[in-house]
Amino acid sequence: MFQSFDATSNPGQGPDRLAALRDVMRAEGVDGFLVPRADRHQGEYVAPCDERLAWLTGFTGSAGFAAVLADRAGVFIDGRYRVQVRSQVADVFTPVHWPDTTLADWLSEHLAEGATLAFDPWLHTVDEIAGLTDKMTAAGIALRPTDNLIDRIWTDRPGRPVAPFFAQPLDLTGEASADKRARLTTGVDTGAWVITLPDSIAWLLNIRGADIARNPVPQAFAILHHDGRVDLFAPAAKLADLADHLDPTVTLHDPDAFAAAVAALPGPVRIDPKSCPQAVRDLISAAVIETPDPCILPKARKTEVEIAGARAAHLRDGAAMVRFLAWLDAEAPKGGLTEIDVVTALEGFRRETNALRDISFETICGAGEHGAIVHYRVTRDTDRPVRRDELLLIDSGGQYVDGTTDITRTVIVGDPSAEHRDRYTRVLQGMIAISRAQFPRGVAGQHLDALARFPLWVAGLDYDHGTGHGVGSYLSVHEGPQGLSRRSTTPLEPGMILSNEPGYYREGAYGIRIENLIVTVQAPDGPDGRDMLAFDTLTHVPLDRRLIDTGLLSKAERDWIDAYHADTLQQIAPLLEGAARDWLQQACAPL
Amino acid sequence: MFQSFDATSNPGQGPDRLAALRDVMRAEGVDGFLVPRADRHQGEYVAPCDERLAWLTGFTGSAGFAAVLADRAGVFIDGRYRVQVRSQVADVFTPVHWPDTTLADWLSEHLAEGATLAFDPWLHTVDEIAGLTDKMTAAGIALRPTDNLIDRIWTDRPGRPVAPFFAQPLDLTGEASADKRARLTTGVDTGAWVITLPDSIAWLLNIRGADIARNPVPQAFAILHHDGRVDLFAPAAKLADLADHLDPTVTLHDPDAFAAAVAALPGPVRIDPKSCPQAVRDLISAAVIETPDPCILPKARKTEVEIAGARAAHLRDGAAMVRFLAWLDAEAPKGGLTEIDVVTALEGFRRETNALRDISFETICGAGEHGAIVHYRVTRDTDRPVRRDELLLIDSGGQYVDGTTDITRTVIVGDPSAEHRDRYTRVLQGMIAISRAQFPRGVAGQHLDALARFPLWVAGLDYDHGTGHGVGSYLSVHEGPQGLSRRSTTPLEPGMILSNEPGYYREGAYGIRIENLIVTVQAPDGPDGRDMLAFDTLTHVPLDRRLIDTGLLSKAERDWIDAYHADTLQQIAPLLEGAARDWLQQACAPL
Repeated sequence: MFQSFDATSNPGQGPDRLAALRDVMRAEGVDGFLVPRADRHQGEYVAPCDERLAWLTGFTGSAGFAAVLADRAGVFIDGRYRVQVRSQVADVFTPVHWPDTTLADWLSEHLAEGATLAFDPWLHTVDEIAGLTDKMTAAGIALRPTDNLIDRIWTDRPGRPVAPFFAQPLDLTGEASADKRARLTTGVDTGAWVITLPDSIAWLLNIRGADIARNPVPQAFAILHHDGRVDLFAPAAKLADLADHLDPTVTLHDPDAFAAAVAALPGPVRIDPKSCPQAVRDLISAAVIETPDPCILPKARKTEVEIAGARAAHLRDGAAMVRFLAWLDAEAPKGGLTEIDVVTALEGFRRETNALRDISFETICGAGEHGAIVHYRVTRDTDRPVRRDELLLIDSGGQYVDGTTDITRTVIVGDPSAEHRDRYTRVLQGMIAISRAQFPRGVAGQHLDALARFPLWVAGLDYDHGTGHGVGSYLSVHEGPQGLSRRSTTPLEPGMILSNEPGYYREGAYGIRIENLIVTVQAPDGPDGRDMLAFDTLTHVPLDRRLIDTGLLSKAERDWIDAYHADTLQQIAPLLEGAARDWLQQACAPL
Repeated sequence: MFQSFDATSNPGQGPDRLAALRDVMRAEGVDGFLVPRADRHQGEYVAPCDERLAWLTGFTGSAGFAAVLADRAGVFIDGRYRVQVRSQVADVFTPVHWPDTTLADWLSEHLAEGATLAFDPWLHTVDEIAGLTDKMTAAGIALRPTDNLIDRIWTDRPGRPVAPFFAQPLDLTGEASADKRARLTTGVDTGAWVITLPDSIAWLLNIRGADIARNPVPQAFAILHHDGRVDLFAPAAKLADLADHLDPTVTLHDPDAFAAAVAALPGPVRIDPKSCPQAVRDLISAAVIETPDPCILPKARKTEVEIAGARAAHLRDGAAMVRFLAWLDAEAPKGGLTEIDVVTALEGFRRETNALRDISFETICGAGEHGAIVHYRVTRDTDRPVRRDELLLIDSGGQYVDGTTDITRTVIVGDPSAEHRDRYTRVLQGMIAISRAQFPRGVAGQHLDALARFPLWVAGLDYDHGTGHGVGSYLSVHEGPQGLSRRSTTPLEPGMILSNEPGYYREGAYGIRIENLIVTVQAPDGPDGRDMLAFDTLTHVPLDRRLIDTGLLSKAERDWIDAYHADTLQQIAPLLEGAARDWLQQACAPL
């Protein structure tokens, strides 16, 4: 899954809101104000009360930011959003192609020397402000931290989420919070870490929350002391259910106490400059060490218990997916289904498990040419029938207490063309190459990414997204630091869960993506006793055999598909009965 | 080809020479002296007069260095040389496993605070000395540049090479020196570059030399001025033949004039800290810009003329290789051949082309278990019969005026085992994957390396060297910056020549390597019009069909082999007659 939850927007009000913001800017005596999409916790998703960028500009993409000056307002978006932004923002906003044009270059061009640029230091990281300060200083422009100017004019701003945090019990995490903290602080005699990432806090304290749609993260701040004690800052109402769960070394505080607590910390204070708000940095008077958030890497190495939970979640989710695919295969060829019908039905099958906490992201369901829009999310305006002899791409997932799932299947409704089969098979060959890969310890995703692309590359084809991302354990469906792309430099380690999702997209025609989740495991000793790692596939849902051109496959690839289907039948059939079980049986027949 | 020319050594004299060096160190009042293998030009190979490391220690490997202190002398070697070093150096030297133990750590441990460490600043790069200075300063140890203390005691040191430089004409380079210089200096209004790399000077001025065995590089220094003028510093005797070749904007100087010329340069003076001697840096009084040698990247992008030359050289060399393989196939099974016989015969076939200027490196010829020693070079002491039912690995190449070749073939004498065939086929599959690869512009060797390893990885196997290196045009057989390994971060570009040489080595049993040279080319437009690059194979010599297990191959791989053999037959057969032609015919039959 590639794309985030898109907020609803109200582009018609953009000009009025922009004028109101400029009034505030004038009153404050500043020449510019930055409006990032981020909240204080720098997650991929934000709560409605933090959708300042969408509120101001109308732009609802998951990545972007605005810079408002007295005479112009730039909305910075990357290649994915160049079409969408034009339909969403009013003429008073100027789309800027980022990163082709950087924020610093644009500001230097449009602000005069001596100008003052205001920003909310809670919404920008230490690294961001450091980089911007260098460039603005060179251009003679002053940066000024301020309270958030949008919040002064957004009078009907939604309230902050209030859902309580809750425990993620030891039988689902496999490691007590106290043990995790002991592990992180071993050998550290002084100071503390300030933790601002919600999923780091979730992992560290074995808690979850409901502050963000589709992501069971607790929005809070925490201080981890060198002796393993934790101060947790969140509204008392959210913490009420945790009293029995958290041990006495965790102290609960009102969020208002956070600033004073940070200011009073003895050094060294460790912050992650890639996620820590500049405002937090500014509070610290003691010595600072900039270092990666200590939870990120251990969180990525799932425990045996978490991996067992992921397997259970994937069997449960796989059975729901098979019921869905059996239904789809029966209903779609009759005609009359639309993309929204498909999305609704799929969520229904997942809810029937009685174990679904939430879907793990807004389902991507693209029929025909919509499949080629990588971040397509159906709306009432775009809904489209599912037609015969077209491909249908469905990328979806569930949040279960024991694991987070993310699966893409592309199916044919009716009969595939020769091109459909050729492209589907090449994408599948790439997915199989990653699935079969073994590799020496030390290899990172950047080294493996080409394995997934090779079958497309040799035909002059490719896809414009990474091959895979890390996945959390009943946490964010996108989780670092590991990945499978040319940007993924973190060596893979046992326990890391990844998506494996090559694709192919022919603009205006169709899209293909095939996605399984995989977990990195120790490989059996090879003939030479090398220390090799491998991937074990978590997802067990049939591939569309009608789309496979067996003439392109090697024997090893064909054997892999047959073994995968045999394994899927064996694991999923016991969870099914009736028509769905019959459908699974034929879907898993050997090639 | 992986390994360098190894100097002859005389380990018995090590203790006396070490004692003499320590006498000089005491007289100079220094507590340590560094003895690198490098000469002033930081090439992979050095002339006999620069073999100071081998002269002192007896160690003849191509990588390593010594640090001599009053009470101990460390010889730093990497994993390849841990066995060899023990047989070559006397007890007075201590082998040190590098980079596990760094020079700085070892010095900090064994030198007292306040000690002085001497070094010859002509033999160490700016980057090396900068890194060492930081660490030695922290340890309270002073670095002191000095003349070379070895040279004071090496009384029978060979003279410097005297062979004249010679022209590489335009019909072999495709771009005049003046045009190259105009291209490099466009848009540069001030200052100069100091060029210290011999193959950069060879490329820039379209000249070659004979200062280093197997590598037609001219050892010289040059200054490239912003207006395209060049000052070239080398002994007059070496420059005599160049008078008609070099245009008037190139001024020839005695080497003794170099230091004063550098000192007098107006700024900015551009040096490459990865290759520029610290002594040169110390001469510069003007402003310095540290930047990569400007010749490296354009040299790597071969011209159409150089590529045409490479094709011609490879056909010529391929015909010699086929004559050799036909001879080997007839003679080896009879018994009686040794590795030295094979090496001698192969060089003979290359000399029969009447076009061979030199072999491009010392031939690697490993029978049976010798094939598993990646840097094996046969000597009278190690020579071994070529026995039936064993693999024979031959890695060799030629220097021709139109191109440099480098080829490895592994053949079976008699009948292969099932394991031989399995491993050979996996290595071949890796070689084919690189040969077939297409990839978007921007991809570097680090992204492709896994394609060559995948067929081995899935069987739990691997090889401990890179998959490929850059290759020069009638220049060094190892040339950067491009490569095919996890360390190769330079994006591949059309015109770059690389080796494609996966392998497999079972220690004590056998070695397999299959190597072709390939050139990066623009791929034909794909169905979606993507800008893709591909590799075109330069080497045309049959693969040993007896070693191929067709059951492991995909149809695409099998088709590639048949097409490669058909192409080889078509291109090489016209250059042959008689038995060699007949042998080629059967060797190129479809699988």
